[in-house]
Order: sequence, then structure tokens, then C-alpha cells
Amino acid sequence: MGAMSAINPKQWVRPVLRDVQAYVPGEQPKTPGLIKLNTNENPYPPSPRVLKAVKAAVDGRLRLYPDPRADRLREKLAARHRCRVENIIVGNGCDELLALAVRCFVEPLASQRGPMSQRYLVPPVKATVQFFSPSYSLYPVLAALHGAAANALPLGWEFALPEAGQVRHLKQCLPQAPLTFITTPNAPSGRGYPTAQLDALCAKFKGVVVLDETYVDFAPEHALDLALKHPHVIVARSFSKAYSLCFQRVGYFVGHPELIAALHTLRDSYSVNGLGQIAAEATLDDLDYYQANFRKITATRDWLTEELTRLEFHVPPSQTNFIFTRPPGPSAETWARQLRAQKILVRWFDAPELRDSLRISIGTPAEMKTFVQAAKKIRG
Amino acid sequence: MGAMSAINPKQWVRPVLRDVQAYVPGEQPKTPGLIKLNTNENPYPPSPRVLKAVKAAVDGRLRLYPDPRADRLREKLAARHRCRVENIIVGNGCDELLALAVRCFVEPLASQRGPMSQRYLVPPVKATVQFFSPSYSLYPVLAALHGAAANALPLGWEFALPEAGQVRHLKQCLPQAPLTFITTPNAPSGRGYPTAQLDALCAKFKGVVVLDETYVDFAPEHALDLALKHPHVIVARSFSKAYSLCFQRVGYFVGHPELIAALHTLRDSYSVNGLGQIAAEATLDDLDYYQANFRKITATRDWLTEELTRLEFHVPPSQTNFIFTRPPGPSAETWARQLRAQKILVRWFDAPELRDSLRISIGTPAEMKTFVQAAKKIRG
Repeated sequence: MGAMSAINPKQWVRPVLRDVQAYVPGEQPKTPGLIKLNTNENPYPPSPRVLKAVKAAVDGRLRLYPDPRADRLREKLAARHRCRVENIIVGNGCDELLALAVRCFVEPLASQRGPMSQRYLVPPVKATVQFFSPSYSLYPVLAALHGAAANALPLGWEFALPEAGQVRHLKQCLPQAPLTFITTPNAPSGRGYPTAQLDALCAKFKGVVVLDETYVDFAPEHALDLALKHPHVIVARSFSKAYSLCFQRVGYFVGHPELIAALHTLRDSYSVNGLGQIAAEATLDDLDYYQANFRKITATRDWLTEELTRLEFHVPPSQTNFIFTRPPGPSAETWARQLRAQKILVRWFDAPELRDSLRISIGTPAEMKTFVQAAKKIRG
Repeated sequence: MGAMSAINPKQWVRPVLRDVQAYVPGEQPKTPGLIKLNTNENPYPPSPRVLKAVKAAVDGRLRLYPDPRADRLREKLAARHRCRVENIIVGNGCDELLALAVRCFVEPLASQRGPMSQRYLVPPVKATVQFFSPSYSLYPVLAALHGAAANALPLGWEFALPEAGQVRHLKQCLPQAPLTFITTPNAPSGRGYPTAQLDALCAKFKGVVVLDETYVDFAPEHALDLALKHPHVIVARSFSKAYSLCFQRVGYFVGHPELIAALHTLRDSYSVNGLGQIAAEATLDDLDYYQANFRKITATRDWLTEELTRLEFHVPPSQTNFIFTRPPGPSAETWARQLRAQKILVRWFDAPELRDSLRISIGTPAEMKTFVQAAKKIRG
């Protein structure tokens, strides 16, 4: 141990990775009995047909490799979206695909220590991941892990996305950035954007644009067709939240076959587990069940919005399965702590532009009634 | 479409990725009725207790995120290997972790087009992934995808690994390479290496060494303790082949907590699906079942070796669940084609040093009898 203790194993880690702040996922509590409104999971289980299909597949086939490209699932998705199988890549959750997009389209430039911003007065455009802020807090982490710069474009008043005509007046905007993420509907605000606005905005960007539609099933419209119209636009979708399959990690991209093929080359061959593929296939055979859930969740969301507004919460309209709300009275951080004391988990983000609000996932009506009672108690 | 058709979407893909040859996984046939001896899957199903545990978990919990760090599984693995939880990272199959190791320890240097070898007369050592050849054909692909150079060190006669004392005489060897992969037992040859030899060899390398022990459960000894002895040594293990769980993608690394922590930072938060975690946990509670399988498989392997030797196949000793054998008579490629015509899939690699042999996974005794009959028929 003498010689060994003198060695610092950090020496073997690439300098650019030594100071990166890892992404912090929401708490996944290990004890039951909490009302979990902190990571936007669906309060309803997968459909009985999905559970039956997965159970029926738990047999000797677990010893075999799954289909490396999830072809049966891609065929079903292609039929649903009226596109070709070649337009689709399935990943180990959308997170895998978002990370692949960064590695596929953005040059890494950093091999020295320290964050990009300290090394370049103006980071090179080709090594820049661009996104609107606030949005999914994973994007800047993916940039840092790749050794690329992060360019956060501020959303407007109440999380408005700029109109296409405004892009050239946004001084931070880099229309040439190799990759721009747009979360639509936005998280954590829940605000939705019209497809026509997204269409015009995408046309202003010269690099790849990923429209991250993780929450789109709760919105009145989607922009999937833009991925089939613009060769530089990719739409990201997930089975996790809307389709109650977080546990099994299935997400997908729709985009131009050339971009999809490049992502396939980068992806681990067997990244999508077999039972996840089977669950996602069965989900697509039972969409009515899920559409009924979407209606229940949006109704609960609208009820909650009314109740909280009455309690003097500021609740902007949401097109997702969560609300992002500024509570009255004590700080949002205090609210989160006091709710937790009543066994209710919500999400509070310790970031300057977010710290005055709470993100609250929509649970069952019973859970949300308990939540409102807890809020009344805290309000006094 | 006028403007669109003039656009080549490849322009958005990083130049270094445009010419990379993707890893080609073994064929996963979509029709039943084939004897599948081509991707080293275990011929026996997971234990009844594992199937029961997974089935019992197919319920409403699928809507929830899995434990991002697979803590319960890591605790069980730590107990099994007599190490700390901090020594272990679980991944979406070993492939995810091998790719993370490249990104964590090796500098990417390429941002121009074309393979590294054409851009640098001598590629920089810090941008080099080193491995012994032949071994797992994924390693050079991972190097290329990362924009790093691949340094293949030839194994000796009958796939011998060099002794530590020989390292400085191997003119291709880079003791300073930031990452060296050693597949032990070797694939595709099946040859095993003594732990004492690996121990002395690891001491010669200044960068990180990954001992890829995917097949070690079929060998008489393992080198896991080296990951706890040397701070720069990581041991890779998998639930796929030995534990009949290819479908659910669970592998892990054991190594120094500092290296493991860096890999955690790079990993997607929820990369290990929930049912895979549950299956792996249940596996560790039923190791006797699997050890009985290992004995059956090695007995079948030894029987097959005798039978094929009698048919004038050259069959070097194997410490894995496959053999790598030079068939008599027609070319190995012809053998593979003729076996396929008899509904038997084996693996043939189109590489100069491998093209005269077949890699044959060990199936059930009945499957291997059918195989021997087919071989006799082809032999005439």
C-alpha cells in the first residue's frame, strides 16, 4: 500500500472531466409511502395489455440478445408517424439519444483542464451546444461531458420562445451552432409552443435542431412533421412519462435517414433492452388506454391549477403533466421542505431563474387533493 | 423540396464520424428454428427464481424511474466480491461501460476527416486505445468513434499473452497508453491466462487497464482481486452470457472508487433498466443454479472438443463457453455457409488473422450432437 497510496487515480481521468458537475436526477426514494410528484412520472400504470405482454415474455428468451435495432418497434412507430423505418432510431431512454446527438454533431475541442468559458474568450461555434433556458438541465451537462461549450439562450417573459423574426436580434443566438435543443412543450415551465412558430424558428438555424417533445402527449399539438419536412430537424419522443414506462428506458428520435444512420453508428449495438422493446410495442397496440390517461391527467392539472390559484399560487398555463408554480408566502425552498415533512415530494431547482418556483407533477386526483390539503395547512 | 434536395445532411455529421465502420453484432435471426451458436449466449434459461422475481415485478412500478445507480444490486455485488459499493458501477451491458472507459480516460484528438493513422505519422499516445489482437472487435470501433487511435498488440503463438518481461521488447507496445483492454479469457480464441501473469503484466502499464472478464465464469480462475490491488486496473463483468440475461443488458466494472466515480459522472443517469436490475439481483441469490450450468457447459465443450478433434478440426483449449476452431477441408467461410444451410448459425470473422477459423458457442448437448452430425455430413 505504500507505493499505492502516493498515487492519485484522478491522474487517469481526462482533465476536462475532472471538474464537470454531473447531472442530478430527481430523488427516487427507496421507502414507500411518499406521494411522488417530483420526476413527472405518470400516476397510472401501463395498460393491462402491456403488463400481460411483458409478463408473457419473461421466459427462456431472456438468455438471448434483443433485436439490436428494435426493428419491430421501429416498424410500428413508422406506421404511426407515417414515415420510413429509416427515419427512426430507438434508444435506451431519450437521454441516450440526446447524448448521442451531442457527440454526433458537435466537435469536442477541450483537452485542457477547466470549463470551456475560461479557455476561450469566445468558444468556437462548431464546439457549441445551444439550447433555450430554462429547459432540460441535462443539456449543459452533456456539453460539458463532451468538452463543448454551452450556449444558453434566455426564453422571454413567462418562458416565451422567440419568434423567427427575432432571432437575428437575439445577440446571444448562434444560428450556425451545430446543435440546438428546443424543449417543446418547455420543461420546467410547462409552456407549449405553436407548431407554426417552431417551423419558422427551425428555418433560422443552420445546424441540427432537436425538438425535445418528451411531454408533447399532454399538449394540444405536436411538431413531429417538422422532422420529416426539414432535413436538419429531429424530434425526440419518449415512452417514459406519457406511456408509464420510465422503468424500462425506451425513447426515440425521428429525423432524416442520414442523421439517424450516423446516430446508429455511434449507439451501442444492444442499447435497448428486450422487455422494454416488447413493452413499447404493446403500448402502440393500446393507444386508447393512454389517451384516456392523458385526458384524466390534463383534467386533474386544470383542477389543480384552479385550486392553487385560489390559494394565491401563481400558476402559468401548462401543456404538460406538471405545473411550474410560484407559491405564496415562504420561499419555494421552504415549501418543498414543508411538503416533504408531509410526505409529498415536489421538485425545487436551485438555479437563479428557477428558485422562486416549484415543479409539481400531476398525480391521481386523490394525490392532488392530499397535496392541496397540505398546501392549505402550510399556508395556515 | 427544391431547396431541400440540394442539401446533403451528412454535412451536419462530425467529419471524424463520416467514415467510421460501425461495429457489426452477430446475426440475431428473427425466425425461430435455427440452432444459434453465433453470439455466445447461454443455452440454459435464467433460473426459475429469477424468472419469478422478474414476473412479479411487472406491475404498476414500470411507470416509475429505476434506481439510477442500482444501489441494491451494487450492494449485493460488493458483498460477493468483498469490496465496497464505491468500487462498482453497473451499466447497460458491459458495452456501455467499455465505451465510457474510452471517453473517460482517452483524449479525443481528431476533428478532421479520415482515420487517425492518415493524419498522424505517430498518433499521440494520450489519444490511443490499446488492446491485444485478436480480441473483442468492438475496441477499435470505440476508439474510432471517439476520434482516438487504436493500437493493436499482436498476441503470440496460439493467442498467448506476453509475459511482463517481454513488454519492453514488444516494439508496438505503449506502456504509457491511457487505456489498455485485455480480454481474459480471450475472445474469440477462448484461451485463458493465469492471474499471476495478468498481475505482472498490469504492473507494466502506466495507464488504465481494463481486464474484460466477460467469459471468466467458464474459466478455472479469475483476476477480480487485481482491480482491488492496483488502482489503475478495472475488471469488467457481465450478466449476459454466463447468467443468461443478454436480453436485459446488465454489466459492471469493479475498480478504484475515483475511476468508478468518474465513470458515473459520464454515464446516463438511468442507463440500467429496472427489470434488468431486479433480474441481476435475483441471479446473485441463486448462484448454485448458474454454477451447475457452468459445469454442464464446460462438460459439453470438452465433449465437443474431442468429437471435433476426431473429425480433424484443430481445437485449441478453451476456458470459455465457445471454441475457436480451424475446420478441415473447405474454407471456414464455406463451412459457415454450409452449416447455415443446415440451420446452424456459427460465427465467422472476415479478418486476416481469423478467417481460417470458426467461433462456435456451446449449446445444449442435443444441439451439439446435431452440430457434430452436420459437421460429419459436410466432411462427407
